[in-house]
Amino acid sequence: MMFSITAPCPGERPARNDAGQQMATLCHAATTIRTLSGMATDPVLNPHPDRLLPAAEPARSVARRLYRAVRDLPIISPHGHVDPRVLAENIPFTDPTALFLQPDHYVTRLLHAGGVPLDALGVGRGPLPAAQARAAWRLLCANWHLVAGTPVRYWLESELADVFGITRRPTAASADDIYDQITAQLAGAGHRPHALLDRFRIAFLATTDDPADSLAAHAALAVDPAVTTRIVPTFRPDRYLEAGRRDWAEAVDQLGVAAGIDTGSYPGFLAALEQRRQVFRAHGAVSADHSHADAIAVPADDPAGLYRRARAGQITPAEATAFRRHMICEMARMSCDDGLVMTLHPAIHRNHHPGTLAAFGPDSGHDIPTTVEFTRALQPLLARYGTHPGFHLVLFTTDATVYSREIAPLAGFYPSVYAGAPWWFLDNPSAIRSYQQAVTEIAGFSRLSGFIDDTRAFCSIPARHDMARRLDAGHLAELVTAHRLDEDEALDIATGLVTTQPTRVFKIDG
Amino acid sequence: MMFSITAPCPGERPARNDAGQQMATLCHAATTIRTLSGMATDPVLNPHPDRLLPAAEPARSVARRLYRAVRDLPIISPHGHVDPRVLAENIPFTDPTALFLQPDHYVTRLLHAGGVPLDALGVGRGPLPAAQARAAWRLLCANWHLVAGTPVRYWLESELADVFGITRRPTAASADDIYDQITAQLAGAGHRPHALLDRFRIAFLATTDDPADSLAAHAALAVDPAVTTRIVPTFRPDRYLEAGRRDWAEAVDQLGVAAGIDTGSYPGFLAALEQRRQVFRAHGAVSADHSHADAIAVPADDPAGLYRRARAGQITPAEATAFRRHMICEMARMSCDDGLVMTLHPAIHRNHHPGTLAAFGPDSGHDIPTTVEFTRALQPLLARYGTHPGFHLVLFTTDATVYSREIAPLAGFYPSVYAGAPWWFLDNPSAIRSYQQAVTEIAGFSRLSGFIDDTRAFCSIPARHDMARRLDAGHLAELVTAHRLDEDEALDIATGLVTTQPTRVFKIDG
Amino acid sequence: MMFSITAPCPGERPARNDAGQQMATLCHAATTIRTLSGMATDPVLNPHPDRLLPAAEPARSVARRLYRAVRDLPIISPHGHVDPRVLAENIPFTDPTALFLQPDHYVTRLLHAGGVPLDALGVGRGPLPAAQARAAWRLLCANWHLVAGTPVRYWLESELADVFGITRRPTAASADDIYDQITAQLAGAGHRPHALLDRFRIAFLATTDDPADSLAAHAALAVDPAVTTRIVPTFRPDRYLEAGRRDWAEAVDQLGVAAGIDTGSYPGFLAALEQRRQVFRAHGAVSADHSHADAIAVPADDPAGLYRRARAGQITPAEATAFRRHMICEMARMSCDDGLVMTLHPAIHRNHHPGTLAAFGPDSGHDIPTTVEFTRALQPLLARYGTHPGFHLVLFTTDATVYSREIAPLAGFYPSVYAGAPWWFLDNPSAIRSYQQAVTEIAGFSRLSGFIDDTRAFCSIPARHDMARRLDAGHLAELVTAHRLDEDEALDIATGLVTTQPTRVFKIDG
Repeated sequence: MMFSITAPCPGERPARNDAGQQMATLCHAATTIRTLSGMATDPVLNPHPDRLLPAAEPARSVARRLYRAVRDLPIISPHGHVDPRVLAENIPFTDPTALFLQPDHYVTRLLHAGGVPLDALGVGRGPLPAAQARAAWRLLCANWHLVAGTPVRYWLESELADVFGITRRPTAASADDIYDQITAQLAGAGHRPHALLDRFRIAFLATTDDPADSLAAHAALAVDPAVTTRIVPTFRPDRYLEAGRRDWAEAVDQLGVAAGIDTGSYPGFLAALEQRRQVFRAHGAVSADHSHADAIAVPADDPAGLYRRARAGQITPAEATAFRRHMICEMARMSCDDGLVMTLHPAIHRNHHPGTLAAFGPDSGHDIPTTVEFTRALQPLLARYGTHPGFHLVLFTTDATVYSREIAPLAGFYPSVYAGAPWWFLDNPSAIRSYQQAVTEIAGFSRLSGFIDDTRAFCSIPARHDMARRLDAGHLAELVTAHRLDEDEALDIATGLVTTQPTRVFKIDG
Repeated sequence: MMFSITAPCPGERPARNDAGQQMATLCHAATTIRTLSGMATDPVLNPHPDRLLPAAEPARSVARRLYRAVRDLPIISPHGHVDPRVLAENIPFTDPTALFLQPDHYVTRLLHAGGVPLDALGVGRGPLPAAQARAAWRLLCANWHLVAGTPVRYWLESELADVFGITRRPTAASADDIYDQITAQLAGAGHRPHALLDRFRIAFLATTDDPADSLAAHAALAVDPAVTTRIVPTFRPDRYLEAGRRDWAEAVDQLGVAAGIDTGSYPGFLAALEQRRQVFRAHGAVSADHSHADAIAVPADDPAGLYRRARAGQITPAEATAFRRHMICEMARMSCDDGLVMTLHPAIHRNHHPGTLAAFGPDSGHDIPTTVEFTRALQPLLARYGTHPGFHLVLFTTDATVYSREIAPLAGFYPSVYAGAPWWFLDNPSAIRSYQQAVTEIAGFSRLSGFIDDTRAFCSIPARHDMARRLDAGHLAELVTAHRLDEDEALDIATGLVTTQPTRVFKIDG
Repeated sequence: MMFSITAPCPGERPARNDAGQQMATLCHAATTIRTLSGMATDPVLNPHPDRLLPAAEPARSVARRLYRAVRDLPIISPHGHVDPRVLAENIPFTDPTALFLQPDHYVTRLLHAGGVPLDALGVGRGPLPAAQARAAWRLLCANWHLVAGTPVRYWLESELADVFGITRRPTAASADDIYDQITAQLAGAGHRPHALLDRFRIAFLATTDDPADSLAAHAALAVDPAVTTRIVPTFRPDRYLEAGRRDWAEAVDQLGVAAGIDTGSYPGFLAALEQRRQVFRAHGAVSADHSHADAIAVPADDPAGLYRRARAGQITPAEATAFRRHMICEMARMSCDDGLVMTLHPAIHRNHHPGTLAAFGPDSGHDIPTTVEFTRALQPLLARYGTHPGFHLVLFTTDATVYSREIAPLAGFYPSVYAGAPWWFLDNPSAIRSYQQAVTEIAGFSRLSGFIDDTRAFCSIPARHDMARRLDAGHLAELVTAHRLDEDEALDIATGLVTTQPTRVFKIDG
């Protein structure tokens, strides 16, 4: 046996200098050897320090150097779905099911596809009784093979190993032990949200919020001396722009109440939106986020008339669509006026399975991508605002074909357009690599938004950013070893992608 | 010279243990050396034991180990187009043109594109006179460069080398020799269909059959003690669902005769389809296969009225389309009832060139893919049956963009949906690699159907499955060397993909 | 220090034999070492001899051998946008801004996206005053990071190093020095167009010309003994086929004048087009080039009626579209008659930003791709002419999804259809690799058109062809190392792709 290891290796995040990386590699080898030689009786969980980097030399060594330079830099998270109340109140997580499983439809959809009923996983329910939470966790561990090869597996492995020091691969046999280890740690102060914000080195975190929200949690966070992370809201007005929704009139009334402006007429509606954007900005918001069935943005001839018909409950579906497409133009106009970055991620068929929606609510794993079109759809908007100084429009999609055909060419001409990170079903390594190649070869690195984690699973934030940093390092290493970039340039780019780039694109210093 | 080889290496399939693999590698090197040193006067045909595996270490060694574990496992072929009569009657093949060229529009289309007339290749004709068969073979050999880089070339090389021990590269000079060698072997008992079924280790083989077919060949095969392969029919009702076809009324009458049920009315039509599905199941069928212009499945308001108008010859094209889309829902309902797996591969523009269709019939190489959409198209069907216990829906496409955007997300939520193998124009290595990555990273490995060869060329079955096993081994090796899977997991997955997975998805044990 | 280098390495194109390549590699290492050891004070520009080749062995060595075999073969450029008057009059270039920046919207769009105003770059203007030209050049150099990772960067590096011997990386600090070095060289005889045609070893060069053009420049070039490159026009009739354009009637009148045929009626219009094609053929043209909003080709029922309405200014947009789609069929018919190769590259949203169009004219960097469809669109045309002897139809697209789904399958059946090189926003290495794989695995290598540079930037022609040769060598090396091709075959293919293949597809010997 080549290595003489007498103490168990810590399940800690790899240490932060080269010696630490070498130690981590030795630990990895030693753990594996212990396993192979029968010293452990069940499979290990032991994420490799080089995971996701190119496998072969010369690219691996270059990638290692690039990754090492960015691995421990603070996290900037400009878009996600963490609940600000959990952060404001520093509510402890109770158990791994509440932490990893219930809120994360990325995980539960894969188990569901494999035959596990969603109710057994506590989807769409509040806190589970202890026995049910443990039973749900056992289902995840016993079905660990269902996530093999997916980013879900990568995130969970990183979280288990790096955040909780777990060293056993999840199986039916190890489920209870892992559950107990995590639950015990969660009871301590070191794993409450504020402590994790520090430990994860999250410098900036944007949540996603309703325009009528009081932003009380954000107000509390802003003055809490225990929170050093800058946590800000994001303006998400989707439901106010869909005049065909059954709850639209009521929503618009609430918006008026929140803004203190009568939304009975179109000018009042616009004024209320503008007022709430100002309130969001005053609470630190840097962006407004939009997701509709398509990306079409066309000014309407008579928006006030459409609004009137909508208020009267007389708007047709076609008119409601026309009104929404008009309002996307208006939101761009407001972004030019007030400086909020506009993000757009259209073309998801939400709640594809009505039975699951009825039983478990939205965000239960059956939002399915559809094709999308940007070139023609955004032309009227970009004709007006595409070269407006300070306007930033970040485009996302789950239709991978659009990156090389439309997004990169648009971002490669318009100073306002940026290519958002691939995300959702495209957050897997091969799609990220395709995106990196397609966008940067057409538009250069300066047109990228930087990574967006878009997560509802708080503990997965570092794992997701770590994946992005590894994949960036690998991509840049391949450019270096093909002699398309010098290594000093690659180092500048890798660093910029997690520091200056998102700061500039999302106006975080602004 | 490093190797001292005194006997010619056999053109046999590589032997089945490690020593055999090493021997095969030595043989390959020796043959090449003989060629380079002038000992052979024309180019060799010498498929490399590592072909299609990753070229560089460390992935190649891992891939070799994974491939070696699955290389010789029996073949499960759940969908293809071999003629069951040829198998039942154990009809000898006469010559390589009849075996490799005439029935395989993958090959003939490439020669046609290169300027070889289809009639010179015997396309769409029965047995050729000996002189014409030989002339056609010469055309293939003289134009060998036209297939360089394609899977057709890979399959043919494997078949020539592994099944017939050919060691000369096809050229104008070697054509007659190869023709004679193969023809001589075909005359022996060892190359008749029953012998090849054994030699190819085909455990399960599904053919594709008309619902009105008597299934006499299958009945004979089932009781033939010389046939150990389980050979079953597949229910393919396309032409009965297309009420706008000129021959539809006649076809529906024949269906009624076959079922012994009056198809004069819609209820009778449904009953006849259900009855024939039962007969297919009684003959061992496990699936029903569907291919139409699109994937849309929407229940019609008045299907009986549409049927009545169709019977009266009064149905409009739009109504015929509505009826077909309704019937796809009905076929899903029947699959829920009787358990036949439903496979769907829409969106081919069949018989693109009318002149070729008129002269040579269908399946003559000019079926061209078009775009397809699944997310919206299948929503009504999946809303009804997507979580029905035991319903299996396997989706295929030749539009590669759909795998990551739609198929994998659907298969990653619905327990009923599986991602079929890429196929047809997508059966090339780079498309298969894209498919492997896109689908498994989004939906995991458990949502794959396993490989489908879909071939009309009986002798190409092992070569096609061998290609898939090599590409699976390569893909998994890349995940292992990027530390995304442990090798024990990769081994389980590689084995499962050719054993338990197709058995489970296609209910072959059922 | 390992290398003892006493003389500076020349910035010359790598020498042409193996010893030369070794010398080039040594020079590259030595220059880098000088830089790292502080002997140079600013970053070097030093394109690596192996750039763009596969990074890892065994593929790199094979790729080097293949590349070396084709590196110095003459250039065949069947489609591009060099101004024939510049060539005919051998007009000297004045400065690097006029040479590299002003005419090349690939470069200026990236700077514009990065915040550099187009007017500061001299876009859409004639010769700039010296101070402005120098200021524009400084903007490029100071923003060199904006092109990192793009093909623009690759082309510019190759041009600066190979054509002008520049050894400093462009930066704000080096801008003036580089500007002065290039300007000085441009003043000499060795960098005038005729000298560069020789130095670039351009054997064949097609320009793009209006059907009513007098072709005087081409006539002069044909009899100029100082020009050994064969320079020919290309027939580009787009604006005559768009009957809805405001300037259409006037254009058609001019066409009639050029042809000496009355275009007042549809038969006269057809006759004038046919006559001008003959004139182009007499001046050496080998192809006719077409780019419209879609690829649809459908014969109209009453084209003469549509023409009459268009002449009377009464044609509707829908009728104008129908007329254009009809005329695409007619152009195919004329190609069958007169032998001009037909090239088709549809589906670009031209002049996406009206403000930029108004200020800077067309071709100013905001032509954005859209989706395209070929299978159904071209069916009527291919039904008529797809198997016509001698008809050649070369298909291009910027929608990468179409290559595997439609173009390769069409080219893999129809003897007339060839897959054009990926181009425009798809001229980046990863898109070219996807194209190479998708097309050749489906249709073989013989269905490729060979590389098309499509450039307006004369000096970039060798850099673009060099990139294509490197990427071809890399692609073929990967097939060789995966044992899918023997190296002798790969060598034949690599050579053919730059010699016999474009010669045959574009009928250059004809």
